[in-house]
Amino acid sequence: MHVALPDGKQLDLPEHATGLDAAAAIGPRLAQDALAIRANGELFDLLTPLPDGAQISILTKKNLEEVPQFWRHTLAHVLAQAVREFYAARGFGPETVKMGVGPAIENGFYYDFDLPEPLRAEDLPEIERVMNDIVSRDLKLARREVSREEALEAFAFDPYKAELIRELPEGETITFYAQEGFTDLCRGPHVPRTGLIPRHFKLMSTSGAYWRGSEKNPMLQRIYGVAFASKAELDAYLHQLEEAKRRDHRKIGKDLNLFFTSEVVGPGLPLWLPNGATIRRELERFIVDLELAQGYQHVYTPAMAKVDLYKISGHWDHYQEDMFPTMRIDQEELVLRPMNCPHHIQVYKHEQRSYRDLPIKIAELGTMYRFEQSGELTGLARVRSMTLNDAHIFVRPDQIQDEFKKVVRLVQDVYAILGFTDYKWRLSLRDPNDTEKYFQDDQMWQSAEAQLRQALDDLGLEYYESPGDAAFYGPKLDVQVKSALGKDETISTVQLDFLLPQRFDLEYVNEESGRSRPIMIHRGIISTMERMTAFLIENTAGDFPFWLAPQQAVVVPIADRHLEYAREVEERLRARGLRAHVDAGGERMNAKIRNAELHKIPVILIVGDQEAEQRQLSVRERGKGERKAVPLEDLVQELDVRYRTRALN
Amino acid sequence: MHVALPDGKQLDLPEHATGLDAAAAIGPRLAQDALAIRANGELFDLLTPLPDGAQISILTKKNLEEVPQFWRHTLAHVLAQAVREFYAARGFGPETVKMGVGPAIENGFYYDFDLPEPLRAEDLPEIERVMNDIVSRDLKLARREVSREEALEAFAFDPYKAELIRELPEGETITFYAQEGFTDLCRGPHVPRTGLIPRHFKLMSTSGAYWRGSEKNPMLQRIYGVAFASKAELDAYLHQLEEAKRRDHRKIGKDLNLFFTSEVVGPGLPLWLPNGATIRRELERFIVDLELAQGYQHVYTPAMAKVDLYKISGHWDHYQEDMFPTMRIDQEELVLRPMNCPHHIQVYKHEQRSYRDLPIKIAELGTMYRFEQSGELTGLARVRSMTLNDAHIFVRPDQIQDEFKKVVRLVQDVYAILGFTDYKWRLSLRDPNDTEKYFQDDQMWQSAEAQLRQALDDLGLEYYESPGDAAFYGPKLDVQVKSALGKDETISTVQLDFLLPQRFDLEYVNEESGRSRPIMIHRGIISTMERMTAFLIENTAGDFPFWLAPQQAVVVPIADRHLEYAREVEERLRARGLRAHVDAGGERMNAKIRNAELHKIPVILIVGDQEAEQRQLSVRERGKGERKAVPLEDLVQELDVRYRTRALN
Repeated sequence: MHVALPDGKQLDLPEHATGLDAAAAIGPRLAQDALAIRANGELFDLLTPLPDGAQISILTKKNLEEVPQFWRHTLAHVLAQAVREFYAARGFGPETVKMGVGPAIENGFYYDFDLPEPLRAEDLPEIERVMNDIVSRDLKLARREVSREEALEAFAFDPYKAELIRELPEGETITFYAQEGFTDLCRGPHVPRTGLIPRHFKLMSTSGAYWRGSEKNPMLQRIYGVAFASKAELDAYLHQLEEAKRRDHRKIGKDLNLFFTSEVVGPGLPLWLPNGATIRRELERFIVDLELAQGYQHVYTPAMAKVDLYKISGHWDHYQEDMFPTMRIDQEELVLRPMNCPHHIQVYKHEQRSYRDLPIKIAELGTMYRFEQSGELTGLARVRSMTLNDAHIFVRPDQIQDEFKKVVRLVQDVYAILGFTDYKWRLSLRDPNDTEKYFQDDQMWQSAEAQLRQALDDLGLEYYESPGDAAFYGPKLDVQVKSALGKDETISTVQLDFLLPQRFDLEYVNEESGRSRPIMIHRGIISTMERMTAFLIENTAGDFPFWLAPQQAVVVPIADRHLEYAREVEERLRARGLRAHVDAGGERMNAKIRNAELHKIPVILIVGDQEAEQRQLSVRERGKGERKAVPLEDLVQELDVRYRTRALN
Repeated sequence: MHVALPDGKQLDLPEHATGLDAAAAIGPRLAQDALAIRANGELFDLLTPLPDGAQISILTKKNLEEVPQFWRHTLAHVLAQAVREFYAARGFGPETVKMGVGPAIENGFYYDFDLPEPLRAEDLPEIERVMNDIVSRDLKLARREVSREEALEAFAFDPYKAELIRELPEGETITFYAQEGFTDLCRGPHVPRTGLIPRHFKLMSTSGAYWRGSEKNPMLQRIYGVAFASKAELDAYLHQLEEAKRRDHRKIGKDLNLFFTSEVVGPGLPLWLPNGATIRRELERFIVDLELAQGYQHVYTPAMAKVDLYKISGHWDHYQEDMFPTMRIDQEELVLRPMNCPHHIQVYKHEQRSYRDLPIKIAELGTMYRFEQSGELTGLARVRSMTLNDAHIFVRPDQIQDEFKKVVRLVQDVYAILGFTDYKWRLSLRDPNDTEKYFQDDQMWQSAEAQLRQALDDLGLEYYESPGDAAFYGPKLDVQVKSALGKDETISTVQLDFLLPQRFDLEYVNEESGRSRPIMIHRGIISTMERMTAFLIENTAGDFPFWLAPQQAVVVPIADRHLEYAREVEERLRARGLRAHVDAGGERMNAKIRNAELHKIPVILIVGDQEAEQRQLSVRERGKGERKAVPLEDLVQELDVRYRTRALN
């Protein structure tokens, strides 16, 4: 057989030659560095026979990042071998370690084991050490095709592998990959030597995993590791994990007493503790006051209605599986609302509207209920009861552009206050092939999508399109905010809707005293109180801006004789509505300061002899160091302004 | 036979003598004035035979108020006769008017008719005129006992009366009461002459009424009237009715666009329009801020929980019929909450509490759901979804008195702001015989009631006791506020509870590091947002105090050239958060002022040449007349202060 090299040269090779054979034919140095081979554009490992006549190019250690699943897969074998050696050192023969599957996965690898005695988390460093040792030994891997009988004989001791072998379809090639001291039933691909594996891996955890994922099967022990091509990547990944853990809103929510869920209340129904409720109240008043100043009319509507309402809106047909069960009362079939729009439409319909009245902006902190599977519920981020910063703008066709621009500007204003600087505009369109998820009316969709594109183009906003992310009744603009963990989260949405006005037969009296149909813009700026709070917790890691901090300032008297002045400072701040208190406990000053920092209180005011005499304060703020001898009046004024203006720091 | 007079004299009378016979035997003048007779302490009409040997006293026209049901009943007959005459004048014979029943009722009387053609509301004055004529004719009434056959023959033309006669039990005396031109099947009592009826009556309405109250029967037409002994009483009653109508919160709610209910949303689930929502938002922020300043900790908890929670609390056993149906989700049986206490208890239980932490005051604007019969639902006053200004104070036994006093003072402070001056303190106790409504534990009730009395006595509050008005789990102090219509309404409640802490096994670490059980004080200050708003609407008749008014000020430019300055005034007021707008419409100034008054806008600012030049305003306020040449700066400052301080006018 022969293969063609990148420079066009032909290379003659014996029958069934592998990539390794090809590399060796080119030169011993290449054979030493070779990692994998591309044949006719497809990646093969170096141990697999090449197709005759293939156009090939060889990848070396410099190409590690192109074949992460090759060396991660080999790492899984190295892990299994290390586990064998670990148990062998403890007197257990190799056949006492039985093995499930051991694939490469994103960012790493795992292997499932049935072990002679359970592995403890403390054992992982030792196993990791053995793995490093196996990598150092630079063991050669070999690939071998075997018969079913041979395979079953080799794994007679291992019921899991035997089960896998028996289930392989008739006629399928069965292969073993083997290195010194370890053989596995495996399809590959692998790197040809353990020495080629980058040493930037780490075992992360062990956990239980049912054999083949079914509760009916035995529970195996899964060892999970991460592996990267460079130390920098591994470090970045571990740092990211640390950050995610550190910023986990459930952990911070617990540490700072923000919220909790209760077994007897029910899953997905969080209870907001006083600290968390303070943040929510500040957010609510902030957005309501801003909206009122911009001509929104806030309403309160009930969180339920007769099922009939959702039959008209179409939710009953298209959204029912996300809704709560109905409740029968007298003649009424009631159901908790999954969305607020039908209620706001009732408000619109309550009186006759004229073209002069439009736009009409109906807003609400609307509580809604959605059915989510228990398994998907997470802290405040995925819940069953939520309160949305919702509004519906009823416009004439000629007002779409203007109102759309105003909403976009409102988003920008709100994000400036919240300190969101890294966000993108996503135009979410329907997937025309999905007849379940989207209301069927091609013309309406085309018109709505065109209008929205037009508005965005007019605004000169940079945006990207995302088919399949639209809402049931229309396309929308989603604002994707980058979280501190680097994820894009949809915070705000603006949605154009020609459908509900038609379904509810909405109208207004036009300039010719005839009837016209308004268009609806659905919009949410700060999302639900639950999601926004979860997002803020994660983004600030609990270091909330001053105006949102549940406890804004603590006054720390150095000695008991400073308590009186400390109380006066507290009183002065409280009179401005600031959340301040004196730490009158028995600990020493430094302990009190540490405690305040632990509780993420942004402003610590220290009061000693000089401060009390001069009516001053020593001010310590996180990330700002200390300011001494600040006059009380100045400080009260400064904090008041920071609170009222919702300053970022 | 003989009877005894009040002075002890005996009066001899023929057998079966009536009261009228007795009066005539005493003197013709008395016979003329006599109205009714008391025999052996029991009231009889003058046409009914007296018991032999009775002790009698005769009532005359001066005693009208003692026998209102006598002359009201006679008025029902007069009404029926007048209706006969009314139709006779239109060519319908007396037998074309068929009659159901016609009793005296509280404040008046009615009669149900099956008429040859429907009576219209416009016909009532004519019928009233005929009634007055019949009274003037001073017709004598006669009572006659008849046989069933005679009765049936007399009413052969009237299926309703015939049905009544046929259903009278065997052996019962059947009586007719007759006056010239009219005979009715009737048990009495009546006055002896139509001339004795006081002329202070008025026909109020006609309405449909099913024969014998059943939908299966024919619909009759009911004519309803009121009747009093004096003009003053009639006028007062009509005025009260007018007031109730004028102040009806449903009517004002509609006129001022405060709220509405929607057929397709469902009964008892009001939607708050922007104007009503403004009042509610102001009330909510008022009470929340006040409570925060007094050390309450506000939370948000979900409006539902697993049924288990209410099984522990006891609501499931004792309150279930007032609760919504359950909803099954996954493994959970969820139900909307009828009260917030179990949720606040979860907040208390969320961490270990020490004696030093108490009292802990958990507060919430808590939304709850209660099942009410459709027929009982009224505007905002009786609803199925409501949001309560709720709090639960967890105290040590030695803190009950202090915390109770603080709540009472909070009630007093809040009422001063709301302008409630006429209220009483009601100590609501259980009815020990009602084993259904109240939790059964005599000792607990006795202790709780004693504690509450003690606290009230210590406070020196004047109060009255009301057995049977306690809550399920404890006695309470209700604050009964007198409404503008003179009704007492329970607005605030403070309730002592030893039961729920026990049921939920609440505890705190006491000074000896042991475990003690806290006591709960349930308290609501401004009731639900729905009830308080209904009450305020009724009490103010829509003239809300400045801080609550949905529209606080309107700027009226006299001519177009004043529009620019008017807009500046509007801007200045809005910058302070005041709800002000310019009336830039085309009407004349006086029409705009009338319109503003109609919409109950408390402050009208008129802007003409002088005002614009001098930067002044003409200020008109309801009930305060006009102030001219008020400097703009002064006015902005004044209104700002009135708003912030929630001044009463």
